[in-house]
Formats: sequence, C-alpha cells, structure tokens
Amino acid sequence: MLITEKALRAFTKNIFLAMGCSPEHATLAADVLLLADMRGIDSHGVARLTGYVRLWEKQRINADPNIQIVHETPTTATIDGDGGLGLVVAPFAMKVAIEKAEKYGSGWISVRNSNHFGIAGYHALMAVEKNMIGFAMTNASPLVAPTFSNERMLGTNPMCYAFPAGKYPPLIVDMATAAAANGKLEIAQRLGKQVPEGWIQDKTGNYTTDPHALKTGGSLLPLGSDREHGSHKGFGLSATVDILSAVLSGANYGPWVPPFVAFLEPPTDPVGKGIGHFLGAMRVDGFRPVGEFKVDMDNWISRFKSASTIDPKQKVVIPGEPEFEAQTNRQKNGIPLVDSVANDLNELAKKMKIAPLNH
Amino acid sequence: MLITEKALRAFTKNIFLAMGCSPEHATLAADVLLLADMRGIDSHGVARLTGYVRLWEKQRINADPNIQIVHETPTTATIDGDGGLGLVVAPFAMKVAIEKAEKYGSGWISVRNSNHFGIAGYHALMAVEKNMIGFAMTNASPLVAPTFSNERMLGTNPMCYAFPAGKYPPLIVDMATAAAANGKLEIAQRLGKQVPEGWIQDKTGNYTTDPHALKTGGSLLPLGSDREHGSHKGFGLSATVDILSAVLSGANYGPWVPPFVAFLEPPTDPVGKGIGHFLGAMRVDGFRPVGEFKVDMDNWISRFKSASTIDPKQKVVIPGEPEFEAQTNRQKNGIPLVDSVANDLNELAKKMKIAPLNH
Repeated sequence: MLITEKALRAFTKNIFLAMGCSPEHATLAADVLLLADMRGIDSHGVARLTGYVRLWEKQRINADPNIQIVHETPTTATIDGDGGLGLVVAPFAMKVAIEKAEKYGSGWISVRNSNHFGIAGYHALMAVEKNMIGFAMTNASPLVAPTFSNERMLGTNPMCYAFPAGKYPPLIVDMATAAAANGKLEIAQRLGKQVPEGWIQDKTGNYTTDPHALKTGGSLLPLGSDREHGSHKGFGLSATVDILSAVLSGANYGPWVPPFVAFLEPPTDPVGKGIGHFLGAMRVDGFRPVGEFKVDMDNWISRFKSASTIDPKQKVVIPGEPEFEAQTNRQKNGIPLVDSVANDLNELAKKMKIAPLNH
Repeated sequence: MLITEKALRAFTKNIFLAMGCSPEHATLAADVLLLADMRGIDSHGVARLTGYVRLWEKQRINADPNIQIVHETPTTATIDGDGGLGLVVAPFAMKVAIEKAEKYGSGWISVRNSNHFGIAGYHALMAVEKNMIGFAMTNASPLVAPTFSNERMLGTNPMCYAFPAGKYPPLIVDMATAAAANGKLEIAQRLGKQVPEGWIQDKTGNYTTDPHALKTGGSLLPLGSDREHGSHKGFGLSATVDILSAVLSGANYGPWVPPFVAFLEPPTDPVGKGIGHFLGAMRVDGFRPVGEFKVDMDNWISRFKSASTIDPKQKVVIPGEPEFEAQTNRQKNGIPLVDSVANDLNELAKKMKIAPLNH
C-alpha cells in the first residue's frame, strides 16, 4: 500500500503517545522514524515500531525519560538518556552539541543509557541545517565478529558524517561499519535468496551465503570482509564507534550491549548503562566563510558526478544522493509499505487502542 | 642492515638540516619519520626521505615555512602550512588543537598548503600523551577510483583515531580508506608477486592482480573493493577525509591534489593550496574521569583479546598492538633497513654532503 507522509506521521505519533510519551517526545520520535521512511531507509523507519513497543512492554524503554547532562566542559558533555527512546535522546544531545558549537565553534556529546536511535543521518542533518558539519554514531547489539574471531562482539555500529552543500543536497555518508547491515540480510531472508560471500560467516568462521546463518551461531563480517581485503579496518572503525559512544560515556560496549529484540535478554553483568551514542557539530564558519565552503562543496560534487564511468549507464553516486531522490519522490507519491509491515502496524494499533493506518 | 634508532635519527635530521630546515623543524621531522620506522610502518619512514628531497629540489616543499593560523574560533582553526613539510605542519596544527582542548574541552584544525605528513598515528598520539583522544586525517594524491568509476579521483586518504588506555598501550586505528594502501602494492612489485583480487582495477574497470596496473591507467579500489561488499562505504570515508582536510581548509581536493612524486607535475588548474589535513583532540575528562575511562578501555581490550578465535594460533589483534610490539622490538634490536633503501639513503647523503649511514 501507499500511504501519505502526513497519515503515517500521525499514526506513528499516536503509537508513541499510547506508550506514554509526552506530545513533544512523540512528535520528535515520529519525525525521526518518518525521515527514514521518506529517505527510503525502510529498515529504520516505522517497520521498527513494533520492536520499540515490545521493548517498552518489557520495561527496557522508558517512555518518559529525564534526560540529563551529567558531565561537561564548554565543548564536550556526557548525557544520560534515562533509558529513553534513542529517537528522543539523540536529538536532545545533538541540540546540546549545536548550542556548544554556536558559542565555541564545536560541540561533542557522548551519550549513555539510551536505546536504538533510528537513522544516524537524522541527527547529523540537524547540524547541517545550521551550516555545521554533523557527526553521529551509535553502538548496537553484537552481531559482528572482529577479524580472526567467530564471536559476535560488535554491533553494525554506524558512523555518519554530513556536510552542507550549496546548490546540491547535503553530502551524507551514513554507513554501517559491517560489510552489510543486518537489514540487507532480512531482505534476502524474506525473498528466500542467498547473500554474497563476504557478508556473513557460520559459527566455525567459514563464509556462508545462507542469510539465516546468524540464527545458528554465525556472525556478520566487518567492512572489508576478510583480512586480505581490509576487514581489520572495518573492525577498527567499529571499535572507534564503540569507544566514542560507550567507553567514553559509561554505556555498555562490545558484547555487553543489550539486544534490540525483546525476546533476547540483556547480559546479566552489564559494564555500563544502556547503549551509547556519539554526536558532534562543528561550525563551517569556524574554519572558512560558509559561502566559500559551499562553492567548493558544489565543485567537489559536480566533479565527482562527472568522473569517468566503467558502465556509461551507471554514474558515480554522491553519498546521500539516492536518499534525497527517494525523499523527493515519496513527498510527491507517498510512502510504499509492504503488506507485512502494514499488517504488523494495524495489529499494533489494535493492541495500543489507536486508529488503524489510513491511506 | 640493522641500524640503531639513534643513528638513523641523527642521519635523518642531518638530511633535513641540509635542506635548510631550522634545527627545531629538522628534529621534529626526523622524529615523525623515525616513529614510522620504529613502529614497523616502513613505507612511511626514512624510505620517503629521497622523495621529500626531490620535491624540495623542485621547490614544491618549502624548508623554512611560516606556518600561520588564518581563521579561528575558541575550538576550531584553519592553518596555512606555507608549503612546508607536512611532518612539521601537522604537529604544529596538533599543538594548537591540544591547546584549545586544554581550555575548552576540544580542538579541531583543518590545514591547507601542506605536504605529506608521515604516519597519521604520530599526530594522533600527541593528543593521547595528554590523556586526550586524537584524530588525524590527510588527503593525498589521487590513486583511488570511486565506486562505478575507473578514474583516479581520491588518495588513499587515511583516517586515524587514537585512544589512551591504562595498562595496555593506546588503541590506535590508523588506516588507509582504500582496500589496500599503495605501500602494499610496492612490496608486491619488489617481490614480483601478484596481488589479491579486490585491490586494484585496470583502466577498463576490471579487477586485476597485476601490482603494476597503476602504471597503465589502473586505479586502487576503496575499502570494500566492490559495490556488493561496500566499496561505496570506503568511497564515503575517503570523501569525508577529503572534505574535512581540504574543502574545509581551502586546500586542493579530489583529483586536484598535487602528486607526491616529483616526476609528476601538479595540476595546472589548482582549486586550493597544497594538500590538506584535519587534526583533532578531545579531553577524555571532558566526558568522564580519566581513571574510569582507562579502566573501561583496559576491560574493552582484554575482552576483545580473549574473543573466541577461528584458528587457535591467531588471536584477535587490537588496533595498534602490532605496531607497539614492533616499537618495543626495534628499540632493543635496531631498525632493519632493506638494501635498496640503505643504498638510496647513502646516495642521498652524498648529494646532500652529509655523513653516510652509520650502524
């Protein structure tokens, strides 16, 4: 089915209200999820609503958190999310980062005691709107094995860097540090397809193309896939995200990160509180006049768009460009929801006693 | 041959003095190169001395630069390196970043008009010594093609993140954002060996295992190697380094970055000045007491070192650990120099009228 942005936003907000979120938090959380659906990142949008509700039912998400700064300098801070939705905690933290950047040039926030924060790009874009460069990272429940290991030690730990441009949309690098994010496995599972070698290994550490291998002790591989192709770099990037997000804030790190699914219990020996994020903002005019920067950004983008191609039909893709195109398209034509997601959401509406999807 | 750290350091300093560097700059530049040799990153140590001298002979390196802050806020700055050695310009910039971090919690410097800065790890470690987290990146002359392209548009653009630990050595992620750095190709060339698929493509965009393919129009591939395995992520990381280092500072970016080799001329239509770096420092105690952070870093490292392994003989490698072991070993046993490098250096000594290598 196709649904309008407005209708899906209202529905999503109603779910969060029914969980007990304040109107302000419900509006914000819906905004974060909707941006994922608008930008075509369907794995991180409303498809996750039932998951958030299940965690809330198990009291692993606090719908009415008291989010607080617990430590700070003029340009750094640690924020405790009080077990709230990451969808609410991360924008709070980014707002603090932006305020610090307005005063001092840059602002950097490490967050503990939070939950899944949706797409990293939402938070980084908050900075871009202020002519700042935005940074957003989060750790996540362990699915990825380090190079040489067959143990799930790290999440798909995304890093996002977002830069304002002039006539072009912002350039946004928003990427899992695994070879392939879990969402891609889920698509293959639904379609009954195999996945390429280099995405997952089975429990003995051999490559497998079975997208269900995670259920039998397998693990995702870091970006680079194997040592020869640089998987130690993917591991290093993932470690960086984990340390900035969790070791720095006092959240759980590595294999101690609590699972995102309600049917798996969190470790009984936590090393910190909840999951962790890291958010940052730097004023472009802390380095150079914004106008000059944007002229060079546009020149960068246009030069890369015209780079010589291997297949004349496939041009170089500027990071963030496909998502911007999806957004333009879905604003006009609505958001496609697959049947299984629409059915889940209507079941959820019944349970939470709100109106069903209305398209 | 084996040479002591002290002898190689003295030799290297003499070369820089003969180029016209001040004693202070010559000492510093030698220190940066020596750390690479000590840490086993031989491609970035004294093996590069002849290259620096050739660029200086062509007046593309200024041995006596007037390095200046040209724009700043309390926590950000742009520095113009005046065409100096990156080995001198980058530590200057990192010192400014550290001073800002001491006052305000963090400091971030974008650098233009510089040259090759040696190993990123040197600069990031300057912050670690002050109980800060260190960041160091640089763009580099174009060898890497973006996903879907066969044109060399980006350097191997390294990013480095360095974290202090307690009883363990600092955790240092220091990586080229290409699938394999150019130094690895050079090793294969010397040994007459093929390289794995996924490192390079020929000029038509097909994988090749010929390590000489760069000479016939080929290009290096981003981390991830191909689209299916995430090369768009390697491209995105490399773009991030390029933008933070050069678009933000006003240096040359993308295909306009001047070549590191003297026999290739720089582009005649520069878009900025020299090459660019990006350096940053954040105080750990801007987030959390240093002692607490180090306890958790040690716990992180020890947990990852004991992760279940695929091959019992190959444990998980903590980023920076092999380089630390090389340093300990070479401090005791000296630095091995291959004959070709030792001969080059003695030729160079003759030309620069300094004493030959003395072991």
